[in-house]
Parts: sequence; structure tokens; C-alpha cells
Amino acid sequence: MTTAQPSPPNIIFILADNLGWGELGCYGGGVLRGAPTPRIDALAAEGIRFTNFNVESDCVPTRSALMTGRHPIRTGALQSVPAGLPQGIVPWEITLAQLISRQGYASACFGKWHLGDRPGRYPTDRGFDEWYGIPRTSNESMFTASPGYDPSVTPLPYVMQARAGEPASDVHVYDLEARRRIDAELTERTIEFIQRQSKANKPFFAYVPITQLHYPTLPHRDFAGRTGAGDFADSMVEMDSRVGQIVDALDATGLAERTLLVFGSDNGPEFRRPWRGTAGPWTGTYHTAMEGALRVPFMMRWPGHIPPGRVTNEIVHIVDLYPTLARIAGASAPTDRPIDGLDQTDFLLDAQAHSAREGFVYYIKQELRAAKWRDWKMHVVWEAEPNAGAKHLESPLLFNLTRDPKEETDVGSEASWVRTPIRRMIHAFQQTLKEHPPIPAGAPDDYVPGAGKERQHDGVKREK
Amino acid sequence: MTTAQPSPPNIIFILADNLGWGELGCYGGGVLRGAPTPRIDALAAEGIRFTNFNVESDCVPTRSALMTGRHPIRTGALQSVPAGLPQGIVPWEITLAQLISRQGYASACFGKWHLGDRPGRYPTDRGFDEWYGIPRTSNESMFTASPGYDPSVTPLPYVMQARAGEPASDVHVYDLEARRRIDAELTERTIEFIQRQSKANKPFFAYVPITQLHYPTLPHRDFAGRTGAGDFADSMVEMDSRVGQIVDALDATGLAERTLLVFGSDNGPEFRRPWRGTAGPWTGTYHTAMEGALRVPFMMRWPGHIPPGRVTNEIVHIVDLYPTLARIAGASAPTDRPIDGLDQTDFLLDAQAHSAREGFVYYIKQELRAAKWRDWKMHVVWEAEPNAGAKHLESPLLFNLTRDPKEETDVGSEASWVRTPIRRMIHAFQQTLKEHPPIPAGAPDDYVPGAGKERQHDGVKREK
Repeated sequence: MTTAQPSPPNIIFILADNLGWGELGCYGGGVLRGAPTPRIDALAAEGIRFTNFNVESDCVPTRSALMTGRHPIRTGALQSVPAGLPQGIVPWEITLAQLISRQGYASACFGKWHLGDRPGRYPTDRGFDEWYGIPRTSNESMFTASPGYDPSVTPLPYVMQARAGEPASDVHVYDLEARRRIDAELTERTIEFIQRQSKANKPFFAYVPITQLHYPTLPHRDFAGRTGAGDFADSMVEMDSRVGQIVDALDATGLAERTLLVFGSDNGPEFRRPWRGTAGPWTGTYHTAMEGALRVPFMMRWPGHIPPGRVTNEIVHIVDLYPTLARIAGASAPTDRPIDGLDQTDFLLDAQAHSAREGFVYYIKQELRAAKWRDWKMHVVWEAEPNAGAKHLESPLLFNLTRDPKEETDVGSEASWVRTPIRRMIHAFQQTLKEHPPIPAGAPDDYVPGAGKERQHDGVKREK
Repeated sequence: MTTAQPSPPNIIFILADNLGWGELGCYGGGVLRGAPTPRIDALAAEGIRFTNFNVESDCVPTRSALMTGRHPIRTGALQSVPAGLPQGIVPWEITLAQLISRQGYASACFGKWHLGDRPGRYPTDRGFDEWYGIPRTSNESMFTASPGYDPSVTPLPYVMQARAGEPASDVHVYDLEARRRIDAELTERTIEFIQRQSKANKPFFAYVPITQLHYPTLPHRDFAGRTGAGDFADSMVEMDSRVGQIVDALDATGLAERTLLVFGSDNGPEFRRPWRGTAGPWTGTYHTAMEGALRVPFMMRWPGHIPPGRVTNEIVHIVDLYPTLARIAGASAPTDRPIDGLDQTDFLLDAQAHSAREGFVYYIKQELRAAKWRDWKMHVVWEAEPNAGAKHLESPLLFNLTRDPKEETDVGSEASWVRTPIRRMIHAFQQTLKEHPPIPAGAPDDYVPGAGKERQHDGVKREK
């Protein structure tokens, strides 16, 4: 079935940080977590809510997957890396922001980038017109309060800003007080951008990777003590309020029906204490292959295009947003490289009952950990809690996620037929890795897959 | 604040068996478990849904608590016991059915009793006018299919029926086929009772302790294969449908607004495979002191009296239903014995914002395992999975259930002030055990607390 293609909408994409499946009210958290989330719950009710939306193992890999449509094993953006060490995606990658910007969108990134922290790799080098936020991640805000911290060794973290074509600049140190304020700043700038662009004669793409609930999970002073349940709950209430502010600002422009609003999380809940989150009925946290790492809260609202009140348990993956949002913006994903994402436009717009996807492979760094297919997940490496010690399984474990959401009962013997499609899927993926060798982690700017390192990149970096 | 007392309503109380917190759609399960539960979800939406309703450790203790308003440590009904061995509650106990029947209610029990399996202890000896169901529990339905089973050693289990004042009789053997059919039979009889009593000039009390999802979790043949997700999901869909049938029958009589409809579970999910259930965001199963054992799905509908759409996370306990339902029926709980239940009528009818209860103690058999107070739970014995081995803790573990629903992070040091109210609550309870020594498990019919064993019971048994 073909979907009548509406004219390219504005896109606002709010990506929460380390927000587990079980936190929001509409996912069974909310009041139970001491933090009602009425604004996000309402957003879900006005559009589609995913109960089986899947991501990569943590911040960097998921952001790489979102921006490239490719599993991070391909891009080399495998993990969070300290400042000054090689990190992020090489300029040869074509970002979602580039695809969308080429369609004439105004684009901005307000928030945490984490895909490269030096000139040539900032958001404004990779398809966004403007950026305000942090190049890496929020735990760096603890540096200046850490006894013995030496900024001559580990550089001071900064909130930064940039415009395309201009050098990025430091705004102020990202310390604990700045960490409390950052989401307010991002919200304010997002709203200013929406208001500004609502008067422009072109669609806009606002990518808003906010910093809550990443540790240290400290709320803005305006929200401190709000819930009586501690910093974590206060921060969640703040997050809900920030989302509400953005929704209100959008709706006030009258552009709601011409805007696809996306809200979701980059990965499963934090495992570190005292900021440990919850994946609700699932087991595990990010940095594992448990279902609590794979599934995250995700929702989309687009009045008149996405039917309200829809809840789907179909498998969708963060890599799918690359071809899907590209298509919605009128663009196409590149065809000169493996793209793992599948176009879910017809599924989203209700023209197709089922997801384009039945399963996916799941790596942590360079190691295949598990693969999920329909109701089942096979673990080839078992590590239910980060740092528990990865067990490489002689006999892989197979779980039925409907019957056994906590992954406690191996059904590998009774359902051994399931190994066939899962092994087939893994084999097919690994074949593509042979045909298109992965980009090494920390590859230089001029790295081009299939070429010698001496070959210069193809100019994508400056293209927009 | 005082609640205007409405005229005593009919009461229909459907008690599911081993239904974990995470199973129903309105508790985050449903489709995720392969089993949508639209009828029960609708029931919840039409009344009050509890997210912090607490029970005892398993079938027998919870049923004892419901019928006596007393923690099972007091009644001696501590665990499931094979046929022929002493079990259940002594006749000295005054059951909820007795209290309600004395107010002129017609009363019936359709389902699993589990509080005594010999004459003098059947439901019709303990306050109900009529009974159809099983005296003990559903795993006995596996006997006849068990290789080597010898009915001369372990008696055949029967579905039974009785009327007050007449001897109970066996109806048919409770085997696997009967297990599949039993909830259909209970539903049919419940509906017949509702229809019959709707024409009578007195209120009615239908206590319907259905058998799903207790193991063996086998659906009626009409539902087998319905979901494609296996017996467990099929059985849940059947359960939802049975509840729907009862609701429809009630609503068809026009008595909805004169009927308090209660639906809930007796304890946490099953731990045994392949029938293992889920407690959703909580850890643990029944037979533990984890939150997954304590909290169960519970809801009440009474149009015009209980506001629709209310969801409460206030702590309520199964023992509270004894004085609460008694009061709603116009009766009072006895004052000659310790009653642990608190009257929650004002809270239910929205005349009081908070539960009458802030916490409770939790025993498994005769051992104090934990105590819960406001957001916290203290474990004095740790056993996260049944049979894992109970660890008696030198330093009790304290968890904040809002911040840490899976009970993973001890906050005993940072929140040591909480030990004071919890220890105070435990001390007060244990004082009452000294003043009113518990009834021993397996006590004979003539047992009267505080009297010599030779003293005859006080005649409550035949009183109605």
C-alpha cells in the first residue's frame, strides 16, 4: 500500500538521556516513581506510543545510529570517550541532519551531541545550521566538584554554541550548577527557534537531545524539592515540564498539524547509584543486552497524519528513523553504503499494519551480544548487569519476551525452530560486515571505507 | 469527615488466583503479555484502581486475611496443606461472610475456598448460603494425569457443592479437563445467582474466587489457541472474558449502581515454570517478601459512590476489606479479638484523601520477613526468589520503593530514621501477639484462644 505523501512537515525531535522504559506515567511509572508526567503522557495519547522501540547499548551508539541509519558497529562510534581522544562519526557518514537540511529545512541542534568534539565533527559541521549544547556528556559536569580534579590534565567541560560555517565557541563551564540549568537553556532556545522559524518560509528540523535523566540527575533549582521524592523524581518532573513548554510553544504557533513531534529516549535506564533508573517490567539497564536496555519509551505526534491513541508493540529500531524521517522530509537515504534502518513511514502513517522490521542484531562495542526476532531474543553472550562479567554462551539462551518479559526461562530447547530465523538474520548482517568492513573506532577525518587511509574524504563534510 | 452511608449495596467480589501485578492491560501488561484484557481494564476505568494494594504471601494466608480481617499469623492459616491434614481457620473465627450474612444478605461462594476442607469448615459452614467450587487448590487437578498417582494414598480431588445446613457433596473429579472448565462453571453459577437475587427483596454477596491463573494455567477449550501466545495468555483472555460476562449480567439487571464490584488477586505471580507470571516493575513472586509478592492488581467499581478513573498509590491491605466491606454492608467487625484490618470506607468513597493505613507487617508462615511503611520497606529476612534460601539479616535492608521499585539499593544508612516508625510498628504488632497468642496451625474445631483446648467453641460456627 502506498501512503499519500503529505507536504514535508516540521520535525521536532526531543531525545531524553538515559530515560528507562518504566519511568513515564504512560509506561507505568509516573506517580509510582514519585513523578507524574502528564505532559508527556498527553503527547503519547495524541499520537502513537511504541512499546517495542529499540535502541543501541548507550548514548554514543544510539546517537550514531540515529544520525547515520547504521548500526554503530559500522560507524565505529561505539562508546563514550573522554575529551581529546578520537571519537564520533567520520565526515564520510551522511547525517540525518544533512539529508533533511538538503531539502531546504532550517535545522538546529539544542543539546548533547556526543558524535565528535572537535572542529569538523560538531553538529554545525554535520548538517545543522545552529547548535547550543554540550559536545560530550553530563557526567563531566561533576569534574569541577571532584576532589583533586586537575583541569590541566582533564580539560574543563564547556557548554558550547556554533553556527554553520563559523567556528564553535565555548559559552560557559559545564559544572553542577550549569548541569541543573542546561535543559532550561535548551528549552528556551528551542522555543525561540520554533517561534522564529514559524515565520520563515521553510520547514524546520529541531533536534533537541536534552540532558535529563543522565547522571548527575540534578533538577533545575525551580524544580528542586518539587516532588518530595528526591532529585531523580524532581528531574523527571522538570523534564515533563520542559516537554510541555515546547509543545505549548509549538501549538501556539498554529503549526501542530504541520509538525511531526517525536519524543523518546536514547537508551535504557542508568545502572549507577544513586541515579539508577527503572526499565519497568523488563530486566536490565543500558550497557546490557537485556530487554530493559533494548526497549525505550518512544512516541510521535502528528495530528491529522498519525492517528491518536495508537499503541504498538511492533518492533521498530532507532536506525529506522534515518530513512523514515528522511522520507517524511522528502529526502532519500544514501544507496552507496549499507543502511540498516528500514523505512517505517507507511507503518507510522497507518497505511501498513505491521512494522517493516521483524528483528535486529544487537552489539555492545564490537561484540555481538544478542538478536531479537518477533517475540524472541537469543543471547549469545550473557551479562544481565553491567560489569557482572560477560559469559560467552556455548549454548545460547533463548527467551520468549511475551511470556517471559524478565528473561528468566530459557526456551531454547522447546522453541529451537526460532534459532533458524535468528541465525539467518545474524549471518546476513555479518555478511554485510565482510562486504563493507566496519569503520574503526577513532578513525581520522579523512577515513573513507574501502579506500586507503591516504584517500581524502569525499567532501560530504562541507556539503549541505 | 463522615461519609453519608448509602443503603447497603450488593457486593460481587471476584478474586483471581496468582494474578501478578504486571499481567493486566491496565497494569502495563495486556498486549505485552500477548493477552489484551479490555473488560477488566474497563472495570478499572469505571472505578478505583489500586497500585499499592497489598496481600499476604500466598493463597491460604490471603484468603484467611480476607475472611477474618486478621493477619494469618493470628489465625494459623499459614499455608496450603494437602487434603486430609488439618487446615483452614477454626470455627471461632468470624468470617466476613458471617458478618455480611447477618445483615440479611443472600450470600454465595463460587470458587476456590482453601480455608478448611471438611464438614464444619466449608464455605456453607462459615457464612455462605451456597457454594460451588473446590475446597483446596488447582494443582490437584494434575493428580490424575501424574504417572504413578495412587488415589488410595492421596485422595481424588473433587469439585464440590453445598447449601448451608446441608452436607457438602462431591460433584465430579477435578482433573485437567475439569480444571479447564471450572471458571466457566463458576461464571455461569455466579450469573444465575445474580439474576436470581436481583428479583429477591434483599441484597446479595457473591464471592467469586476464580481459579485462573493458578497452575496448571490451562484455558477452557473455547479459549485454547485464542491468542497464539500459549496457554497462559489464553487463560488470561478467558479470565477477562469471564469477568466481562459477570459485569454484563450485573449491568443487565439494572443493579450496577446498587452493587459494589471488586476485582483483585490473592497474591503475587506464580514462580513455577512454565506458568511463571510477572509482577511488572516489581521484583519477586508470591512466597517472597519482595514487592511483587505484596502488591497485586485490585480495583473496585460502584457507580455513583466511587468516582470513576481514580488511581491510588495509597497503601491498602487485604485485611482492610474485612471491616470495610462489613461497614459497607451495615455490619461491624468484632471487638473481642485483634482485627488488623482498618476501615477504608471513607477513603474509598472519596470522603478522605488518604488511606487509613501507613504500613503493615509481613510474615511468611510464622516468620516476620519484612515491614512496609510509606515509601519504604525493611527486610529482616532476605529471599528474593522462593527456595533461594532465606538469609536472616544482621543488618536489615531498607529500600525506597518509589526510587527503587526493584529493591536493589539498600538505603538503610542514608535513611536510618525510617527504622524508627518501622520498628515501632513491628513492636506494636508483636505486643498484640503476646497479649493474644496466635492460633496454632492445624488447631481443632473446638479451639478457642485464651481458653484451654478442652473449652468448646462459642457457637459462632452455627450462628448466621
